[in-house]
Amino acid sequence: MSKQELYIGVDVGGTNIKSGLVTFEGDIVEEKWVDTDVHKGVDDVLDRIGHIIQEFVENTDNKTAVRGVGMGIPGQIDVRNGLLKESPNLPGWDEIHIDEELKKRTGLTVTVDNDANIAALGEYAYGAGRGVTEMFMVTLGTGVGSGLILNGNIYRGATRFAGEFGHMTIEQDGPLCGCGRRGCVEAYVGLNGILRLVKDQLKSGKESVLRKIDPDLITPKDISYAAGNGDRVAIDVFRQVGEYLGIGLGNVVNLLNVEKIVIGGGVSKAGEFILGPARETLFKVALKVCLDVVSVVPATFIDRAGIVGAARLAMLNGK
Amino acid sequence: MSKQELYIGVDVGGTNIKSGLVTFEGDIVEEKWVDTDVHKGVDDVLDRIGHIIQEFVENTDNKTAVRGVGMGIPGQIDVRNGLLKESPNLPGWDEIHIDEELKKRTGLTVTVDNDANIAALGEYAYGAGRGVTEMFMVTLGTGVGSGLILNGNIYRGATRFAGEFGHMTIEQDGPLCGCGRRGCVEAYVGLNGILRLVKDQLKSGKESVLRKIDPDLITPKDISYAAGNGDRVAIDVFRQVGEYLGIGLGNVVNLLNVEKIVIGGGVSKAGEFILGPARETLFKVALKVCLDVVSVVPATFIDRAGIVGAARLAMLNGK
Repeated sequence: MSKQELYIGVDVGGTNIKSGLVTFEGDIVEEKWVDTDVHKGVDDVLDRIGHIIQEFVENTDNKTAVRGVGMGIPGQIDVRNGLLKESPNLPGWDEIHIDEELKKRTGLTVTVDNDANIAALGEYAYGAGRGVTEMFMVTLGTGVGSGLILNGNIYRGATRFAGEFGHMTIEQDGPLCGCGRRGCVEAYVGLNGILRLVKDQLKSGKESVLRKIDPDLITPKDISYAAGNGDRVAIDVFRQVGEYLGIGLGNVVNLLNVEKIVIGGGVSKAGEFILGPARETLFKVALKVCLDVVSVVPATFIDRAGIVGAARLAMLNGK
Repeated sequence: MSKQELYIGVDVGGTNIKSGLVTFEGDIVEEKWVDTDVHKGVDDVLDRIGHIIQEFVENTDNKTAVRGVGMGIPGQIDVRNGLLKESPNLPGWDEIHIDEELKKRTGLTVTVDNDANIAALGEYAYGAGRGVTEMFMVTLGTGVGSGLILNGNIYRGATRFAGEFGHMTIEQDGPLCGCGRRGCVEAYVGLNGILRLVKDQLKSGKESVLRKIDPDLITPKDISYAAGNGDRVAIDVFRQVGEYLGIGLGNVVNLLNVEKIVIGGGVSKAGEFILGPARETLFKVALKVCLDVVSVVPATFIDRAGIVGAARLAMLNGK
């Protein structure tokens, strides 16, 4: 009998390194999460990633074989040579030849791409994006990330910086964004934007369980919990977030005529509290011909799109 | 000696049918423009297009051979079967099988695509977009059209409706657009948007030669002429148009990381009066990594991008 072919997928984030052994069908048969501990330095983190990869390889038995390793990493990465230019979430990781460093440590070729592209690829191959060729994935977290699948492939743009949906201007003189510009999608839909909306609502004097929490320590989880219990402030905040998101999505739909919009990331756990208003607004702002074919759906892999996406990248040999 | 290979390009618009015999290198060796006369009915227009194509074929001598025919047409066209679903600029042209109709009349296979895609392809193959793989073309006219070249090919989207840049929302509660929505790029940069800006400026009491013209009859040509003569109102209007355009372009640049933005169409004859402020604003709103590689340039073919683009489509056999 031939051996079962497996692929290692590694998803490096500012907080965790998530990794897994993935089948060709996208099932994770073994998984390992560790803290990133960025403060320990680039070499230490790379050593640990190398160690995880080697462990996966060594633990395969005579029925399985590792056929490739893929990795997603936040930041601007040149997919042709694995050079990480810089990463806002991994301070100090500038001009690092990721694939060379990992080859040194493991003897294996590791295919690397930007984490937002990898998450989109994971949802496209195995999750909510299956069956279409044009897909847009938005990751709602501290920031707003996005990845594009066009004509069935990751679309990276001229210099691999495509997908900066978070910094799309939707209101010329809107609130200040972390990027220094005004009225970006992220200025409304990113974590700071959401917290600003909460504070605005609380200032207006409305009753809310969120008043019991220090306003600077409120998390999206708190708001989700409150919304789930019928808290008007929480529900209104998510509605506003959804509406702003919907305007941005409308622009993407009009420009790219995508079939599927997949919403993932921690904040997306608020589910229909955000997705409902996002859809309503999208249907107001986009053109009918483009709306006829598009649907907005939650991501399948809440925290694991990166693992299966990275494994998929290895299967595709970097494409 | 082998015969020179030529391609027929036909660009059907609401006003003119422009056509030409084009070499593989993109040179127009013979050209014919006629009025569209849409009011004469679909069959009459198709007959004339068929006649033009046949004339080109018959006029080739023993040194030349027509190798293909391509056509651009405004409206929503299914490139797989040449079915024109509907066309806002060609009233009555609904559900017409363009390629079948032309095959009947000429015996030739005519490859058809949307006019904005065709113009983008013309500039990409032979004009301002040469040498890049990711290009965005905007056509400034009565409306605002756009075409995308991604990975070196026309990008059409899931159902061929990609490129609705004109209806990108850049100001949530902005002025009403012809599409019924608010704050679209076209509501500022389309002809009606420009005329609204002129009227606003004139209402404010500023001196301008444009006061001599009936405000409902002012054309972009009038404004260009005035701007060229230093008229402050005309210059300010174009600056505003450029700034709004720049916001929309910034969103495209952030999302798609294109290398070249080509601005064409009648209104673009205002040149740097619009392009200058558009660039300035683009550089304010887009991210540095994306700006490093992008340039905003005027189209090479003012009125003939459609002819060479349609011929190019025939060379590429519809791709």
